[in-house]
Amino acid sequence: MNLDYMKEFVSTGLKVDSRGIWILDQTQLPQRETWLPSPHPEAMIQIIRELKVRGAPLIGVAAALQIGLLAEHGADRVQIEKALIDLREARPTAVNLMNAMDRMSDVLQSSGAAELPAEAERICLEDVRLSDGMAENGARLIGAGDFVLTHCNTGGLATVGIGTALGCVIRAARQGKGVHVFVDETRPLLQGGRLTTWELEQNKIPYTLICDNMAAALMQKGRVTRVLVGADRIAANGDFANKVGTYGLAVLSKFHGVPFYVVAPQTSVDRDCPHGAEIPVEERHPFEVRGARGAFGNVEWAHPEAKVWNPAFDVTPESLVTAWVLDHGVFDRNDVKLGALTKGA
Amino acid sequence: MNLDYMKEFVSTGLKVDSRGIWILDQTQLPQRETWLPSPHPEAMIQIIRELKVRGAPLIGVAAALQIGLLAEHGADRVQIEKALIDLREARPTAVNLMNAMDRMSDVLQSSGAAELPAEAERICLEDVRLSDGMAENGARLIGAGDFVLTHCNTGGLATVGIGTALGCVIRAARQGKGVHVFVDETRPLLQGGRLTTWELEQNKIPYTLICDNMAAALMQKGRVTRVLVGADRIAANGDFANKVGTYGLAVLSKFHGVPFYVVAPQTSVDRDCPHGAEIPVEERHPFEVRGARGAFGNVEWAHPEAKVWNPAFDVTPESLVTAWVLDHGVFDRNDVKLGALTKGA
Repeated sequence: MNLDYMKEFVSTGLKVDSRGIWILDQTQLPQRETWLPSPHPEAMIQIIRELKVRGAPLIGVAAALQIGLLAEHGADRVQIEKALIDLREARPTAVNLMNAMDRMSDVLQSSGAAELPAEAERICLEDVRLSDGMAENGARLIGAGDFVLTHCNTGGLATVGIGTALGCVIRAARQGKGVHVFVDETRPLLQGGRLTTWELEQNKIPYTLICDNMAAALMQKGRVTRVLVGADRIAANGDFANKVGTYGLAVLSKFHGVPFYVVAPQTSVDRDCPHGAEIPVEERHPFEVRGARGAFGNVEWAHPEAKVWNPAFDVTPESLVTAWVLDHGVFDRNDVKLGALTKGA
Repeated sequence: MNLDYMKEFVSTGLKVDSRGIWILDQTQLPQRETWLPSPHPEAMIQIIRELKVRGAPLIGVAAALQIGLLAEHGADRVQIEKALIDLREARPTAVNLMNAMDRMSDVLQSSGAAELPAEAERICLEDVRLSDGMAENGARLIGAGDFVLTHCNTGGLATVGIGTALGCVIRAARQGKGVHVFVDETRPLLQGGRLTTWELEQNKIPYTLICDNMAAALMQKGRVTRVLVGADRIAANGDFANKVGTYGLAVLSKFHGVPFYVVAPQTSVDRDCPHGAEIPVEERHPFEVRGARGAFGNVEWAHPEAKVWNPAFDVTPESLVTAWVLDHGVFDRNDVKLGALTKGA
């Protein structure tokens, strides 16, 4: 398995060369660009759990490549099956990881381990195409001079391609639409403040960083014309889980009449999940809320024993969504009621 | 001027003794308790601007005491008048500061400088009584087992007495109502994470610290039964300015049917301000949003040149308020329409 040939497509967050898989440690960005080797599934599980790789699509691809590499290195069927199970459980909310592992598992059953590296490469290349489809569909919804508010990080660091929600914005900007981006900093892990600002600087797209609690005042002033967010899992009825804070933005968008779009690949749709209440939401360690840490430093401002609630995600009901932007089309609430999300591409 | 005799009433944030005025540096809490001397008005202006003293009521009292001290030290009328003007402009949003300075100015005109120390003491003691009135009125609205969400810090660190919104909660807890508090961390300056958790620990009141963007998910789960916030200025029609993030909470409360109360002394009402659009909102330095700093450390996670919007306050329209809890009564929207806020006590 050697993805050197598709270097121009692949993500800023992951690479595969003759020596193995490399992950850009996203907890260290933007201060430090550290590439971590992931020689075996246990290493990848740790990397996923510690959010060194993140973004629902990218997690799925990284895990698939790891399985491909394991097969290429001659692991036996028992080892591969164990790795598939362990990787599948590394994070509970993102469905792409589950989907990718299920797909690898199916190939293992039907065609054997020898076919796994090729399947991993297909999943990886598909993710690039999925991003491209979303970017095209989403960019069409963005008008000249739009002010787009976004949450968390959904660009090239969250996928193998151009991104999900931020991919649409980047595509629209490249089309010369003169977009301005408002970036929620996205506490507690600051993916907006650290990663989205970094990607927007690199893409030379004008933006304004705000604290999460300032989004409401921006909308009140009429300064937000559209909200675009990603999704870690979309239920069959259109409810979706995404980074905590998304649900609040959806309520605020409804209240202010601002169109609210969720952008995700078909691989983020969980056909087996009827509605959002069924999506498990991961709760993380209290230290994340008591302070902040990264390559920028390690600070704790709250009482070291402060009691904390720290859900990584929240669930937005379909009733608050203006449209679902998928790689293969844009669907409104009527389409979704008619089963558009589960019909697939 | 010697407030030693009222030690038991006075705030955790301010003291006056024979040597002068002392301010507890709130930017250094909870890691460090540093008392700063404020020997002259220029020192106090700096302390106010750098938010070392904060909380609309406490700022007003601190400035009044500073003028009292200046008069006591024999400053001439020109010096006092200049100090009144400069202090009045130290922060633009909180009206208590303006009200306190206007009151001192009136006394200077009518009775002369010799009367200023006594007037400052009256303002200080009144603030204790105002807090007590709010606490009594607000505690009556809190039921046994309530889950109260609050924003920023509105306790003994924000006033000379027990506090405004948090004062009501503390009073209810002391009445044995078994209240649980959800504390918004309140980015960017983290008054919730640093100061409110500190006060709740000291008062042994159970609480849970959350990031600001988690409040919506808490409400969605039905875990918030009441929201209580303070105010830096209330317009005659009931609109009010408070710490940025308050407006978003008001929208979320409306959407989820959670009662939303604003708690403030009559001194926070600006009779000359017809509605919220007239309240000037202070914008602060970008570095506050690019990172975090305090006695806990000094970190910057965003690009050092990241463009930022950093309003210190936002304005909540009266239509989102369930009731206004003042020191002299609780008023609903009907009362406010009939002029309850501007009639005074």
